[in-house]
Amino acid sequence: MMNCPSVQDIRVAAERIKPYIHRTPVMTSESINREVGAEVFFKCENFQKVGAFKIRGAANAVFSLSDEECRKGVATHSSGNHAAALAYAARLRCITAFIVMPNNAPSVKRAAVERYGAQIYFCEPTAKARQETLDQVVRQTGATIVHPYNDYCVIQGQGTAALELLEQAPDLDVVLAPVSGGGLLSGTAILVKGVSPRTLVMGTEPEGADDAFRSLKEGRIVVCEHPQTIADGLRMFLGDKTFPIIQKHVSGIMTVSEEGIVRGMKLVWERMKIVIEPSAAVPVAALLEKKFDFRGKRIGVILTGGNVDLDKLPWNKGTITSDQ
Amino acid sequence: MMNCPSVQDIRVAAERIKPYIHRTPVMTSESINREVGAEVFFKCENFQKVGAFKIRGAANAVFSLSDEECRKGVATHSSGNHAAALAYAARLRCITAFIVMPNNAPSVKRAAVERYGAQIYFCEPTAKARQETLDQVVRQTGATIVHPYNDYCVIQGQGTAALELLEQAPDLDVVLAPVSGGGLLSGTAILVKGVSPRTLVMGTEPEGADDAFRSLKEGRIVVCEHPQTIADGLRMFLGDKTFPIIQKHVSGIMTVSEEGIVRGMKLVWERMKIVIEPSAAVPVAALLEKKFDFRGKRIGVILTGGNVDLDKLPWNKGTITSDQ
Repeated sequence: MMNCPSVQDIRVAAERIKPYIHRTPVMTSESINREVGAEVFFKCENFQKVGAFKIRGAANAVFSLSDEECRKGVATHSSGNHAAALAYAARLRCITAFIVMPNNAPSVKRAAVERYGAQIYFCEPTAKARQETLDQVVRQTGATIVHPYNDYCVIQGQGTAALELLEQAPDLDVVLAPVSGGGLLSGTAILVKGVSPRTLVMGTEPEGADDAFRSLKEGRIVVCEHPQTIADGLRMFLGDKTFPIIQKHVSGIMTVSEEGIVRGMKLVWERMKIVIEPSAAVPVAALLEKKFDFRGKRIGVILTGGNVDLDKLPWNKGTITSDQ
Repeated sequence: MMNCPSVQDIRVAAERIKPYIHRTPVMTSESINREVGAEVFFKCENFQKVGAFKIRGAANAVFSLSDEECRKGVATHSSGNHAAALAYAARLRCITAFIVMPNNAPSVKRAAVERYGAQIYFCEPTAKARQETLDQVVRQTGATIVHPYNDYCVIQGQGTAALELLEQAPDLDVVLAPVSGGGLLSGTAILVKGVSPRTLVMGTEPEGADDAFRSLKEGRIVVCEHPQTIADGLRMFLGDKTFPIIQKHVSGIMTVSEEGIVRGMKLVWERMKIVIEPSAAVPVAALLEKKFDFRGKRIGVILTGGNVDLDKLPWNKGTITSDQ
């Protein structure tokens, strides 16, 4: 039975996954600093293996399995990046990954999962259908479930991004990350508060999927039934493992508009010349919409991923899709 | 009277401009390497100041001026990146830049020039109109012309990108760069052949603007009257300073299709998560279209810039614009 991760657990995870991941760069932009009135340090997980931080948690989970467990493979449900990450990690260890995906997942994310050789099971894009399909797959295969976020091993792995960030950009006043199921945010919070207690950790999420904001406010896990946001990676809700960690260590959740997400995404593309996905633009939107007094501060931002369908850019159509 | 630059001149230029430019990273992509069957080292000048290598030549020219010359400012004509670069370099030295731009220059490039505080003169998008307008500006102001490419000082500056590339990725078999007026290609060729004589230097250009290819073939500067390409930075033709250097040092010019340019651009965005402009995708297209036997080789590619109008991406409309 695994306990809630400590900073030391995250350090061990970092050593475990080191051979399989990139130490991604931290980038800065003078023009964005001017616009925000602060020093912003972007941890570029869009350059990570499989194009997102998710490989950290997935690799930590897969390389923590016993040989016995490995024989039966791993399974998960995911809207995309976790699926690709688990498929990639499984291939690295030469084991089978069984992936349950909603049938409305972006094609670029589906294609990645296929490329890494996983077995895909499509289901209706509801939390219920995902869980039922996954349960069925596990009954048939005996595979170990690697939950996208509500799993201490995954949380440990996700925390390694912040470990690198604090080494690359020390003495931060604030660290911002998006929150969906809370795997990244809880791992980040444990690490940052353990290493640098004075640094604030804040979550960011779309107004149209503000379940984490409401969960903290109401003191219980709130589920957003019909999330409305282009940030397709941020449509899940907190779990019983991630919620208490976030309650304990996170100073607040800032919600941002869809317009802010698109503006933030475009700004990063234009000024920094890097491709980030809508979910990664959510903390950038929080900076642009001045959801907190960021002036004069040193701010770390985890740019979570760069897997975008280039044929469907939000500023070309303005389409807002939902999880239903 | 300045002579044709040597490797030593390029090293001096590198020291001169060092405080004003970025030492841009060299990036690699396992999936692109697999696709090409070679090891490709991308020199990311899209991350350079003003979003393009052009600041190297412009800064070298501006910081080589006498105080006397500085008082009257600098002037140029350019379709965009050189204009922004000269405006930026002039501002660094607190002098005035007078910029002649074709009235069909991409809005993102116009905006950059305006942001850097230059005085802009718009003209018809023909070589003749550009030259006449520039002559007039110079008569009025006494400004020093900094030609976008046919200028030894500019060529020296552009050669500094390859100097860094060879330090960052030694022992290359081939170096690829796009060619338009030939400032980058000639500077690159002098540096590479001087430092590593066995390394081939090859130019790449769009089929619809293949004046450099034809110039080398015919042994004289050929002018492409109506260039047809989305690579808006590659519509100029060689000058009397760049042509002889290219004749002497460059092993060949490869022409690529418009489809190849779009494919190369999209591939780099998707796999590497970086934003490059169509002109920068031209050498990538040469790799994808296998214009040379690249298999098993170590290849340096200069990704020249990342200034793209995100509202007009070529794969969303397939629009091909021309310089007329």
